[in-house]
Amino acid sequence: MATDDTQRDPAAEADGDETAQPDAYEAFEDRVRRISNVSAAAGVLQWDQEVVMPDEGTPARAQQLSTLSSISHELLTDEETGDLLAALEDRDAGDGEAADNEADDGTLEGDQTAVVREVRREYDRATSVPEELVAEIAETTANAHPVWKEATENDDFETFAPTLEKLVDLKREYAECIDPDADPYEVLFADYEPYIDLETAERVLERLRDELVPLIEQVEASAVDLETDAFAGQFDDDDQEALARDALDALGYDWSRGRLDTAPHPFSSGTQFDARVTTRFEADDLLGSLTSTIHEFGHANYTLGLPDEGYGTPLGDARDLSVHESQSRLWENHVGRSEAFWEYFLPTARERFPELEDVSPREAYESANQVYDDNLIRVEADELTYHLHIVIRFEIERDLISGDLEVSEVPQVWNDRYEEYLGVRPETDAEGCLQDIHWSHGSFGYFSTYSLGSVLAAQLYAAAEAELGDLDDDIREGDFDALNGWLRENVHRHGKRYTTQELIERATGQELTADPFLEYVTEKYGALYDLEA
Amino acid sequence: MATDDTQRDPAAEADGDETAQPDAYEAFEDRVRRISNVSAAAGVLQWDQEVVMPDEGTPARAQQLSTLSSISHELLTDEETGDLLAALEDRDAGDGEAADNEADDGTLEGDQTAVVREVRREYDRATSVPEELVAEIAETTANAHPVWKEATENDDFETFAPTLEKLVDLKREYAECIDPDADPYEVLFADYEPYIDLETAERVLERLRDELVPLIEQVEASAVDLETDAFAGQFDDDDQEALARDALDALGYDWSRGRLDTAPHPFSSGTQFDARVTTRFEADDLLGSLTSTIHEFGHANYTLGLPDEGYGTPLGDARDLSVHESQSRLWENHVGRSEAFWEYFLPTARERFPELEDVSPREAYESANQVYDDNLIRVEADELTYHLHIVIRFEIERDLISGDLEVSEVPQVWNDRYEEYLGVRPETDAEGCLQDIHWSHGSFGYFSTYSLGSVLAAQLYAAAEAELGDLDDDIREGDFDALNGWLRENVHRHGKRYTTQELIERATGQELTADPFLEYVTEKYGALYDLEA
Repeated sequence: MATDDTQRDPAAEADGDETAQPDAYEAFEDRVRRISNVSAAAGVLQWDQEVVMPDEGTPARAQQLSTLSSISHELLTDEETGDLLAALEDRDAGDGEAADNEADDGTLEGDQTAVVREVRREYDRATSVPEELVAEIAETTANAHPVWKEATENDDFETFAPTLEKLVDLKREYAECIDPDADPYEVLFADYEPYIDLETAERVLERLRDELVPLIEQVEASAVDLETDAFAGQFDDDDQEALARDALDALGYDWSRGRLDTAPHPFSSGTQFDARVTTRFEADDLLGSLTSTIHEFGHANYTLGLPDEGYGTPLGDARDLSVHESQSRLWENHVGRSEAFWEYFLPTARERFPELEDVSPREAYESANQVYDDNLIRVEADELTYHLHIVIRFEIERDLISGDLEVSEVPQVWNDRYEEYLGVRPETDAEGCLQDIHWSHGSFGYFSTYSLGSVLAAQLYAAAEAELGDLDDDIREGDFDALNGWLRENVHRHGKRYTTQELIERATGQELTADPFLEYVTEKYGALYDLEA
Repeated sequence: MATDDTQRDPAAEADGDETAQPDAYEAFEDRVRRISNVSAAAGVLQWDQEVVMPDEGTPARAQQLSTLSSISHELLTDEETGDLLAALEDRDAGDGEAADNEADDGTLEGDQTAVVREVRREYDRATSVPEELVAEIAETTANAHPVWKEATENDDFETFAPTLEKLVDLKREYAECIDPDADPYEVLFADYEPYIDLETAERVLERLRDELVPLIEQVEASAVDLETDAFAGQFDDDDQEALARDALDALGYDWSRGRLDTAPHPFSSGTQFDARVTTRFEADDLLGSLTSTIHEFGHANYTLGLPDEGYGTPLGDARDLSVHESQSRLWENHVGRSEAFWEYFLPTARERFPELEDVSPREAYESANQVYDDNLIRVEADELTYHLHIVIRFEIERDLISGDLEVSEVPQVWNDRYEEYLGVRPETDAEGCLQDIHWSHGSFGYFSTYSLGSVLAAQLYAAAEAELGDLDDDIREGDFDALNGWLRENVHRHGKRYTTQELIERATGQELTADPFLEYVTEKYGALYDLEA
């Protein structure tokens, strides 16, 4: 693209080095936007593949995605990116104190510093891993998927074990390339959550384990029988879709920038101009579909709150996985699983499904919050047991990567931990350590962001209520403006301006902490199951 | 992408220049596939924009498409592309005679020569136009669209005239960059139809004009009143969609590699792995929607017939616009507007629309082939008058670009020609020279490919019948296999292997000729309107 010469200040040109700055930043930002646009294009292709692509489209789509991925990798790791980063950092270091007069003296404005910080991080990681290793990981994970699938179908961990071993080795090697002095699991974790240190994550997860295990035991021992048949029955797909649209309408989803479709594994994707939700419908699981839709709404709603003008730069891009998951879980759990929500929404559900006429809001609420104390499957877990599923994966991954655990020992350790933390032992590996696809992707360090998301959701919700007052009345009225306004103001509009820890502290006045989450579940499930305080 | 060293023959490496050949071709093909994948990705983004994108998605989508377009332009015009082309051409020129032993002696195989020829042509055109001019044309056309739209809405040619003048100047300049010695309109025409020379196109169009004007006069003078109310009524969108799917089923559309959606301006797009059709439904125009669906099927069916293994290279890409249009028009007109087709398809239509019970196949056929002798609008024209709409545009464009006609004279000349060729004079410029969007895109030279497509459709259909025998019986049975097999064999599977003229000669034994088209319409409309032979 030709830059527009008329926008330069001719007087400033004469100053030499100092005034080259704005142009260097502009060239840098052009490059960053270019990379973002290629990634956003790939996102559209992926949405298409999951939602509308004909079955036989895969071979061409795989090539298209691979080309886009290699182009954005090349643009990021190009020498030019490194030179621009170095030039901008150099200048900034020299004149950092001129905070009141940033744009004129050649130093970077605060937002520009944030963009440089984010791209520097990505650049360093991308350039430190040799292309051959990237290619080997890509090839191994591509081949791992069918192996994992067959092993799971045949309940045969042995056939997956060599692949898992290879992936552990490759990811260790990968981590070593990025930082040979660091704990490799810390490096891998930072791929998914760059600005929460592993120690913090570990402390939070340990707290969840230590507090949730006894809480779940109390729930198990409780004599209370929740009404969990409220949504039993068979529900038509088209009517479920209409109800999903009602729910998105109610929550304030902006249809001029979004859409709802179905996909086998629901997800949301897009940009602040076009953030789409997918869901799925099963005839016997109306509640599951509805909570999944609200969960994905939370993700899309975050994306829609990112600033338009930041599109194409980190300022218009979401902070990482834990923050994203905090938004989906806040809407799914704190809003969608609240009693107030069912007081508000049940009449709408009854219009679509007259068979729900006799269900009360309290019964709907109880049904949405049953604790499944004998469940082995993560994706079917409730708000309490869910985190123990995560803790087990986290502990096993950490020990695998450190070498403290052999791949062959995984099934045994997995089953022991399920028995220890959840009081239930898988009878097969298929419903044990083979149940998740993630390790076949080589994704070690990813799972914990789910729990960190829940923890952060509670922390943000508590901070919002501290400022706005109890939100139950709003929810009962179907008024989500205050809550969403608070999230827009304190989380969404910042994009990646702040690191995750800064963002959390600015929004809540505290570091990341499990306290609000534990208070929330203790109070909620204490009341539901009539537990001793 | 790292190339796989193990695939090289180490012995061959020592031979120097001669054996560098296979690798040079491989590197060249990698580059070509990369460019194709970026373009195919852009195609998916465009489909998405027309079919499913939320309204407010435009700003981000425009940036994504602009980035992909500039990346593929850069990849194409990169010095590396030029070097590889030169190296491959060099080698081929030296050893061209070794036809039996192509791959081994370092010369190119026939297919490789075709790939080099096609990329060379694109490379030369892309590198000969300065980027500033490309950018100025892009900016001018982007701004031209709203100006054209407003001028059309206000029936005010004056406000569009300066923009049209600027576009004519810019496109003349563009043509001069590509070939300063050629007739500039010839250069522009070659953007859309590189392998039919302008003289041939001109001769064909003149023939159409000279023969169709008197034929249409005979039709006008005919006492025959065709049954044209067969499809009068209001038809539900969902039922129309079901019928469109029936039609695609009947014609043998491969749903595992395609889909049907609606779009404001129907189009088809995609690759041989995923070639999608769009259509639109209007309550009072069942026939219009159905013929439009069959037209787009013809395009998609061509795309689906391109060889899978050629994907990403010119061998897997469609020959240009005239051949593409020949496929859509062959299915729309020679099949979909035949009496045999209505004998076959009317029962299906009656199942969706019982109100058609009393319509006979003959009435449906007549209704589908009415000649609109008082119609001013190209897109509403029939098989006869259509080509005079095209001839008028062609003549005006050619004279505008040569400088023989001033922009200010366009409305007058337009209206005079309509009166002369079609016996009807527009009362406004909105339904005269402002009716098409194409000039606001700077597309001069494009329109004639529509008529060339019809001419070629008739030529191919006649050649197919010469080989397969009369196809009416097949069509009456709903059996399109023989016809499609012939098209696959003689047209589709070749991609861009042959130039257009070679392709036509191989398929039909003749150069491009208007004879079969004129025979077809003379016989068909002679019978319909009971004209003297």
